[in-house]
Amino acid sequence: MDGDTNGYRWIGTRTIRPDGVDKVTGRAAFGADFSLPGMLVGKILRSPHAHARIRGINTKKAEVLAGVKAVVTSADFPEILPAEATKGSSPPNYRHLSQNLMAREKVLYDGHAVAAVAATNAAIATEALSLIEVEYEVLPHVTGVLEAMAEDAPILHDDLFTGGVDPKPGKPSNVAKRVEFAIGDTDAGFESADLIVERHYDTEGIHQGYIEPHAVVASMAADGQANIWCSSQGHFMVRQYCAGLLNMNIGDIKVTPAEIGGGFGGKTTVYLEPVALLLSKKSGLPIKMVMTRDEVFRGTGPTSGSYMTIKVGAKQDGTITAAEADLRFFAGAFPGAPVHLGCMCGFTPYDIENVKAVGYDVVTNRPKAISYRAPGAPIAAFGIESAIDELAKKLNIDPLALREKNAAKQGTRTAYGPTLGVVGFEETLEAAKNHPQMSEPLGANQGRGIASGYWFNVGGESSASVSVNEDGTITVTSGAPDIGGSRASLCIMAAEIFGINIDQVRAVIGDTTATAFNRHTGGSRVTFALGAVVIEAAEDCILQLRECAAKTWDIDIDAVEWENGEARPAGDNAGKFEPLTLPEIAEKTPMTGGPISAKKSSNVQGPGPAFGTHICDVEVDCETGHVKILRYTAIQDAGRAIHPGYVEGQMQGGVVQGIGWALNEEYIYGEDGKLQNPGFLDYRIPVASDLPMIDTVIVEIPNPTHPFGVRGVGEIPIIPPMAAVANAIENAVGLRLTSLPMSPPKVLAALDNGD
Amino acid sequence: MDGDTNGYRWIGTRTIRPDGVDKVTGRAAFGADFSLPGMLVGKILRSPHAHARIRGINTKKAEVLAGVKAVVTSADFPEILPAEATKGSSPPNYRHLSQNLMAREKVLYDGHAVAAVAATNAAIATEALSLIEVEYEVLPHVTGVLEAMAEDAPILHDDLFTGGVDPKPGKPSNVAKRVEFAIGDTDAGFESADLIVERHYDTEGIHQGYIEPHAVVASMAADGQANIWCSSQGHFMVRQYCAGLLNMNIGDIKVTPAEIGGGFGGKTTVYLEPVALLLSKKSGLPIKMVMTRDEVFRGTGPTSGSYMTIKVGAKQDGTITAAEADLRFFAGAFPGAPVHLGCMCGFTPYDIENVKAVGYDVVTNRPKAISYRAPGAPIAAFGIESAIDELAKKLNIDPLALREKNAAKQGTRTAYGPTLGVVGFEETLEAAKNHPQMSEPLGANQGRGIASGYWFNVGGESSASVSVNEDGTITVTSGAPDIGGSRASLCIMAAEIFGINIDQVRAVIGDTTATAFNRHTGGSRVTFALGAVVIEAAEDCILQLRECAAKTWDIDIDAVEWENGEARPAGDNAGKFEPLTLPEIAEKTPMTGGPISAKKSSNVQGPGPAFGTHICDVEVDCETGHVKILRYTAIQDAGRAIHPGYVEGQMQGGVVQGIGWALNEEYIYGEDGKLQNPGFLDYRIPVASDLPMIDTVIVEIPNPTHPFGVRGVGEIPIIPPMAAVANAIENAVGLRLTSLPMSPPKVLAALDNGD
Repeated sequence: MDGDTNGYRWIGTRTIRPDGVDKVTGRAAFGADFSLPGMLVGKILRSPHAHARIRGINTKKAEVLAGVKAVVTSADFPEILPAEATKGSSPPNYRHLSQNLMAREKVLYDGHAVAAVAATNAAIATEALSLIEVEYEVLPHVTGVLEAMAEDAPILHDDLFTGGVDPKPGKPSNVAKRVEFAIGDTDAGFESADLIVERHYDTEGIHQGYIEPHAVVASMAADGQANIWCSSQGHFMVRQYCAGLLNMNIGDIKVTPAEIGGGFGGKTTVYLEPVALLLSKKSGLPIKMVMTRDEVFRGTGPTSGSYMTIKVGAKQDGTITAAEADLRFFAGAFPGAPVHLGCMCGFTPYDIENVKAVGYDVVTNRPKAISYRAPGAPIAAFGIESAIDELAKKLNIDPLALREKNAAKQGTRTAYGPTLGVVGFEETLEAAKNHPQMSEPLGANQGRGIASGYWFNVGGESSASVSVNEDGTITVTSGAPDIGGSRASLCIMAAEIFGINIDQVRAVIGDTTATAFNRHTGGSRVTFALGAVVIEAAEDCILQLRECAAKTWDIDIDAVEWENGEARPAGDNAGKFEPLTLPEIAEKTPMTGGPISAKKSSNVQGPGPAFGTHICDVEVDCETGHVKILRYTAIQDAGRAIHPGYVEGQMQGGVVQGIGWALNEEYIYGEDGKLQNPGFLDYRIPVASDLPMIDTVIVEIPNPTHPFGVRGVGEIPIIPPMAAVANAIENAVGLRLTSLPMSPPKVLAALDNGD
Repeated sequence: MDGDTNGYRWIGTRTIRPDGVDKVTGRAAFGADFSLPGMLVGKILRSPHAHARIRGINTKKAEVLAGVKAVVTSADFPEILPAEATKGSSPPNYRHLSQNLMAREKVLYDGHAVAAVAATNAAIATEALSLIEVEYEVLPHVTGVLEAMAEDAPILHDDLFTGGVDPKPGKPSNVAKRVEFAIGDTDAGFESADLIVERHYDTEGIHQGYIEPHAVVASMAADGQANIWCSSQGHFMVRQYCAGLLNMNIGDIKVTPAEIGGGFGGKTTVYLEPVALLLSKKSGLPIKMVMTRDEVFRGTGPTSGSYMTIKVGAKQDGTITAAEADLRFFAGAFPGAPVHLGCMCGFTPYDIENVKAVGYDVVTNRPKAISYRAPGAPIAAFGIESAIDELAKKLNIDPLALREKNAAKQGTRTAYGPTLGVVGFEETLEAAKNHPQMSEPLGANQGRGIASGYWFNVGGESSASVSVNEDGTITVTSGAPDIGGSRASLCIMAAEIFGINIDQVRAVIGDTTATAFNRHTGGSRVTFALGAVVIEAAEDCILQLRECAAKTWDIDIDAVEWENGEARPAGDNAGKFEPLTLPEIAEKTPMTGGPISAKKSSNVQGPGPAFGTHICDVEVDCETGHVKILRYTAIQDAGRAIHPGYVEGQMQGGVVQGIGWALNEEYIYGEDGKLQNPGFLDYRIPVASDLPMIDTVIVEIPNPTHPFGVRGVGEIPIIPPMAAVANAIENAVGLRLTSLPMSPPKVLAALDNGD
């Protein structure tokens, strides 16, 4: 892409990272880096049981320990009745959120919070936790999705009645929801198929693995005004959720975002913040809480694990005639598995006449699942893209050619409703076909796998302001945390619009009082949606700049044009005036009406759906079952890569996480329902030595609904890897692995069984 | 005022202070309350000489001390040449500002900064200061204004050529500026007078006496991006000045305001911030600097002292025919005494045909003067209001009656240009006449004094935003620090406009990226000028709320009216719809286009000039010279008191500071030019036991250029006290005191001399 910037000055260039120096020098302040005078340390007591009734909590001994300033349990939180569970327009379930924060009648997983203390130091807080006496009545537990759906499964919630595959009216169930998306007639479609593949797949629960544990400083005054400093994917989300959980006015809470050390969807909810607020209210002092890694694994949301059945039928020529998916995702202790998203995304890369995807959202005795990059889609893609590969093999068609034959394109009707507009799936397949990796020779026990992925991307409520400073430099203030380089992309778009040097523009993430509401950073929405409002605000500023020039020259504003950072008379008739630069106009603003600034808010519509295709080469060590990634190329339609370096970073990061998901990462529960690997020594994420350099190819098919053609880029790259790796293993050793992770023991077992 | 709110629901009521709980519980975070991980302690080495040439600075020993991370001197600051002294439209003199921050060739006062260090703790920083070797060539010094204007005075700046009363072209001078404001013909005016009084007055330099010392945390990255947290009267001022001093882009600096523990004009410039930035840049770590009280007195701006000659002539009937003032103010080490403001305000309470006010801005070997509440006006008023009192006595006219006879009113032409609009001076005199204090009997050695004062008030660049939160609560974000209750007054005005309960509105002070540029808090501008933009933004939000209701009901926006916090169909023809409350509309915004918010910026014009009249009763102890304030009433035209409690607080605070100025406060310099009383033990500000409860009367003559009639209220109350006390002393013991402070030794000396 570099060098060819489509006539743009900044769009598509690799400008210096505005967050780079801070992050490599340690100056960037993350969640745990904030402090206040007189601050207490808060700590949480967590359940040692997977499922138990709380008979009583005695906090008296902890309360009288010298240095302890506050103890809270669920009794200190407002109880949220079922009728009050939803507030506002697109909320979480506050009842579940509250019960997840602090267990009420029952603990539902190993690590579920039951009480919290605030003390003058960490040692006292830890000691206080040990003095809290909780009387548990241990109950039978269930951690697997099929087991949880079984007739005689231990039931987590007495008030969940949705039922499962074969619902029994009036009987509580662990199945919170069943969703179905369908077009055409799959029975007829399979009827007309020459070949059908059908197989079960399963995946384990895995954690987002962000390096920065959750951390917060909170302070709440006696009059209800509160301040929170924390790392999250949405400080407006934190504000809204805290207000909803604690019955506070949203306007009484100010949340200041810290730099975020990874979230990947895992920081789209609250764990510590409301607890810290209550401890602060009770103690009258600010509270700092930082999770340990153990707490992150046991107490915060991983993504779902699943059990899936995928069935695909095709004609001999490769035309796919029907496809069905039965997806069963466990949600952990409270409903909310992203199974509907898996259903929506899974088959969308293909233009299939008859599609049916059914999903079940199932509760289990595990921490409540939360988003993880393209939530649900990678899980579905593991099954579906494996099935497509199997189909190709059985049809004796090249897997890329099979995808090309059935590729979704402009006009393809999706199973979940919308018809696709301008999309670039075929272009990613074309790029894959032409990529040198495709012709790289493979050795013994080496194989190559292909897989694709789809994510619709999202827009949503976005608010930003653009201010012209007194010296003509530009400040862009937005309200969604910068996770994947949005400060860079917003600066680039603003500099392009103003026609000025990039070093004259700085983008900052404002606190919750600096902009109006912003939906959290997620769904690959920020460069697209915040970009749209920043562009609108910059254009409004340019209008004001032209007005100032018009006033200065005493001519009509229509006779002033803006070009390359300057106001100029438009044409000869406008008059002869020297151009006024941005700094020159900025200096005059006290005389022309005041500071120039614009603030825009919008619920931005029209995100550009995106596709990716990955090529993975592996080598299987048949003695140990170890799978080595030899080479990996991620190809993706970015719409327009505003800053190619960050886009590549997103692609590489997603692939790495997908490889971890494919090969090693998993939550391991014992028979007792306790998590056995809550630490990075035992929960194995990929490290640099596990991986080759991940190659990237950015395809650019501009999104017609965005001024610069932006599509989201952050989700797609984690969708294909698990299937790409599985398909490569199959290609290498002829074994179709259907269970994640494809760790050495599982690979070895498969080799031994020859299945 | 209470009870009569002119039909308003919130305007004029004493709502609960939004900053109250935080300030009485210690939760409010002031300048010194901020910290960052890895933060160093910065300290400044200051000159022990009043005037000396710096022959050399050797920092080597300090630099190698273990724990010292950076040492800076003026060599580290960009030198700002005379041609570059002004930047932008209404700047400080950056050359002088830079030289005041860190002495270059010469030190110009005892306490002038010469070097700074950053070290891992305070003890090491202090030791490092002692290792810095400065070679001084001590020069003759001058601290008095008349001495500095003398022919043979030691000259501070070789490049100051303005000259004095009798300027010598080409000869450097300590007189930086001469100003003159005049109307009519004072010679002819005095000619026609039956009686003329003329007298010299003098005042000492005094400090603003804010309780919170200057404090800052600053962090600057290698790429030039910087963060500053500090207490000031204007975080945009801090940003602008730091950028100007260090040749940085304004957009590269973010300043977050701390709560301010008093400023009174003294925190309208920078002392520590640019030094901390340079130490941070050099060390690569954040820097915290907090001044000691000694440093505050020796190193930060007091207000000017003065030598004045006041001459007033009148007819026998009390008509003042002419008035002249010759005001000589010392500015300390660099030009900038507020003598022009004294000239402008002094005679403005009176409608006099012939007026002439001449002012001299004189440099002396003292810390550079900076604003102090109504800068210049209290000094001029001390002389002028004393002269009016003397005139009244000699004419045998009651002092209030003499003021009434000559009172400025709508249409009065001021000596500095503008003609007064709607003003309330006569109403303050009327209120004084009717006040019970006027008929309170006086005993032996007791006396009553009257004095008035004028301040034009100011508007200026103001930026604020108003956001409707997801639950319908309102956030008002403005960019000027809250010193005298502006969060309360902005909330009240917003609640009034929206027609909602006051507890649904919160006002916050945003950082420099949250709003566009704001002029600093000063000149009694914030409730007036920020109020105007907040009202404008709230009205814009209401328009958007009506649009949402119109969309929801599918009717025209003109058919929707806003009343009492609800959108309603306007009239019967609009249709039958249940009113939509603010929370109901807020909840729908995701479906009606996105968050509702408005941001307004303006250089607000049309501040309402204000007048005050004070009544002071004293008792003079003729044995000790101690003057006791028996009773004190401050009467003032507030235009409209948005929150009467805060207005009264401003009035009482101003009076207390004026009484301190009148009776005790003074900078005492030794023969050696060193300040002898840099601490609150020796620099005596009034304490609670020195004072009676200060009575207040708010007069309300609305300012026609503000939607709610606001005038500024913060400056006026410090203007009359010194003259009111002097006039009361004269009334008590028949002695006209002309020199501030009227401390026991001076009063005793006057009693002894009988002058």
